[in-house]
Amino acid sequence: MRIGLFGYGTIGKGVYTLVDGLKKSYDVEVVKVFDLPIKREMLGDKLVCDIEDIVNDKNIDLVVEVLGGHDLPYEVITKSLRSGKSVITANKEVVSNHLEEFINLAHENNVSFCFEASAGGGIPLIRPLIDNVKVNDVNNIFGILNGTTNYILTKMDEDDLSFDEALGLAKINGFAEANPTADLEGLDIVRKINILSSIAFKGNISNDAIYHYPISGVNKDILNNIKELGYALKYVASSKRDGDDVIIRVEPTMVKFNHPFASIKNEFNAVLYTGSTNGDLMFYGKGAGSIPTATAIVSDIVSVIEGRAYIGYSNLRKLNVNNGIKNDYKYYIVNDKLEGEFKENVSDKELLSAKFYARVL
Amino acid sequence: MRIGLFGYGTIGKGVYTLVDGLKKSYDVEVVKVFDLPIKREMLGDKLVCDIEDIVNDKNIDLVVEVLGGHDLPYEVITKSLRSGKSVITANKEVVSNHLEEFINLAHENNVSFCFEASAGGGIPLIRPLIDNVKVNDVNNIFGILNGTTNYILTKMDEDDLSFDEALGLAKINGFAEANPTADLEGLDIVRKINILSSIAFKGNISNDAIYHYPISGVNKDILNNIKELGYALKYVASSKRDGDDVIIRVEPTMVKFNHPFASIKNEFNAVLYTGSTNGDLMFYGKGAGSIPTATAIVSDIVSVIEGRAYIGYSNLRKLNVNNGIKNDYKYYIVNDKLEGEFKENVSDKELLSAKFYARVL
Repeated sequence: MRIGLFGYGTIGKGVYTLVDGLKKSYDVEVVKVFDLPIKREMLGDKLVCDIEDIVNDKNIDLVVEVLGGHDLPYEVITKSLRSGKSVITANKEVVSNHLEEFINLAHENNVSFCFEASAGGGIPLIRPLIDNVKVNDVNNIFGILNGTTNYILTKMDEDDLSFDEALGLAKINGFAEANPTADLEGLDIVRKINILSSIAFKGNISNDAIYHYPISGVNKDILNNIKELGYALKYVASSKRDGDDVIIRVEPTMVKFNHPFASIKNEFNAVLYTGSTNGDLMFYGKGAGSIPTATAIVSDIVSVIEGRAYIGYSNLRKLNVNNGIKNDYKYYIVNDKLEGEFKENVSDKELLSAKFYARVL
Repeated sequence: MRIGLFGYGTIGKGVYTLVDGLKKSYDVEVVKVFDLPIKREMLGDKLVCDIEDIVNDKNIDLVVEVLGGHDLPYEVITKSLRSGKSVITANKEVVSNHLEEFINLAHENNVSFCFEASAGGGIPLIRPLIDNVKVNDVNNIFGILNGTTNYILTKMDEDDLSFDEALGLAKINGFAEANPTADLEGLDIVRKINILSSIAFKGNISNDAIYHYPISGVNKDILNNIKELGYALKYVASSKRDGDDVIIRVEPTMVKFNHPFASIKNEFNAVLYTGSTNGDLMFYGKGAGSIPTATAIVSDIVSVIEGRAYIGYSNLRKLNVNNGIKNDYKYYIVNDKLEGEFKENVSDKELLSAKFYARVL
């Protein structure tokens, strides 16, 4: 298996190193790496700076895309699939926007498209879910899907830090990016819950339609009030299918201390879903970090080598995101005096006018 | 895919029903069922009462074994693999005793051997673990692997029942067998942790060498004392590799309330292991029940149909079970007056002479 690697940042380097470790068991090699010319010193002759040098190379069987961003990865993935190469990506932005197109292109060209690392980092999550929906229906998903914000909430709680202090610590320890807006406002989670919901419900969902409320409005006082009520605060994505409708929301969420999510700490992620025949399942592991993410990519590489990377369905149906209050969820709504009250049948307008709110699970 | 099903009890019936549901997506059918003559009324012409009628049937591609017991299942599995049929089993007794032989026979005959349902019931656990150890090392495993005893401990704690009352309730609700000895003494867990350890460590382990201490010595007073100390009591299997040595123990175990295992309630199971590159992973779901178990079997059926049931290694090395006190585990030891104390570097002899004890995680 001759691999063309797009991107030699922290994840790309991790993939490169882990593929080296695979050589004792498999005939596999990274033969070309696309990145900027400044990487020449590290990569020597393997470096290419034109994507066509990989996507048009008939000796390359498999492309791994860890560039980040949207436009260039989209071009790399579609061109590679069309030229008969299997593709593995960790790119949640591109996958959440174009999953159906990629699955169809892979089917048409008789190659594989894998994206285990695009949600849940190092947790083996997407392949078991793909397998699971072949044998039973999955109609709801809950996820703690963002390592940065879960780390912040943990540090605020356990080390009595303010939101900003915890965010600073997350940056120092490599769990938050310089610009963490996509994490704090829930956009990162929107993309991940979209990917998981698309697989589970075999449907197509627009990122733009997914409701998300920022976690950054929380402060120590609110967190303490919530704790005194017997709850832990988590930043949770929830997704529920009802026929061709889905209700997908990314919201601060209160869980009882004995709920499985209460013990998910620091940069860990967890996904809980219910199968119609096998019941509640939860998967837990490191949701961020270059080596766990690279491990998920290398696991995809092995599944392509062994011919196991089979999705088994290509056409996704259109699902309508229901953004109204057609839910019976319970909320804890905090006013400007930091007084909170539990309420049901609340409109999004009312939620958005609160100082802060959390859904109650 | 023409299937021969061995055993038409509750799990067998579940498999039969779920395979019917697969027909809309796959060309698959249960063509013969082996069981006792009294099942004739239910099964009609599909019933066979001689195993040779299935293992010698050249039109059958795949055998599903859910008989229970040891001798007959062993004969069915080996004969089926030798005659070129793939085999799926839920039988932890047979798998834990003969895993290497079955994997080798499957390789030699170019067929698949699958056993997802043999540990962890409906949790997708074994296939992700097989995949995971292809890309990184796993050197320790912790598991809550028995639904019956976890149900009993939950009911004692939450509903203030005695051990015997909780056991009675488990029987009424179908979570305990008429003779629950294998569950209460830890033998059931021994087999499951053996299977998981064999895969994770790519080694061969004898069931007989695995230390197990019964859970049945616990009572309400001990449970309350443990709770007051800030711990939940769980019946946990632990397995740790050190080179060619393994320390495997099945023991009552105390976990802090914020440990992920503390929230595993009722008949649920959970397995926690650490990958060398992707870190701690936990899988959680229903560990018992006919339909969750049947779902795991049907998931194996789909993986055989799609050609994804590939283990990828056949020769297991011999691992020595270390049963001594060469561990630095911490224990809580209860005397006859129900007074407990925490101790380290304790010999098994001292543990066995206590009124009751629990390992402290």
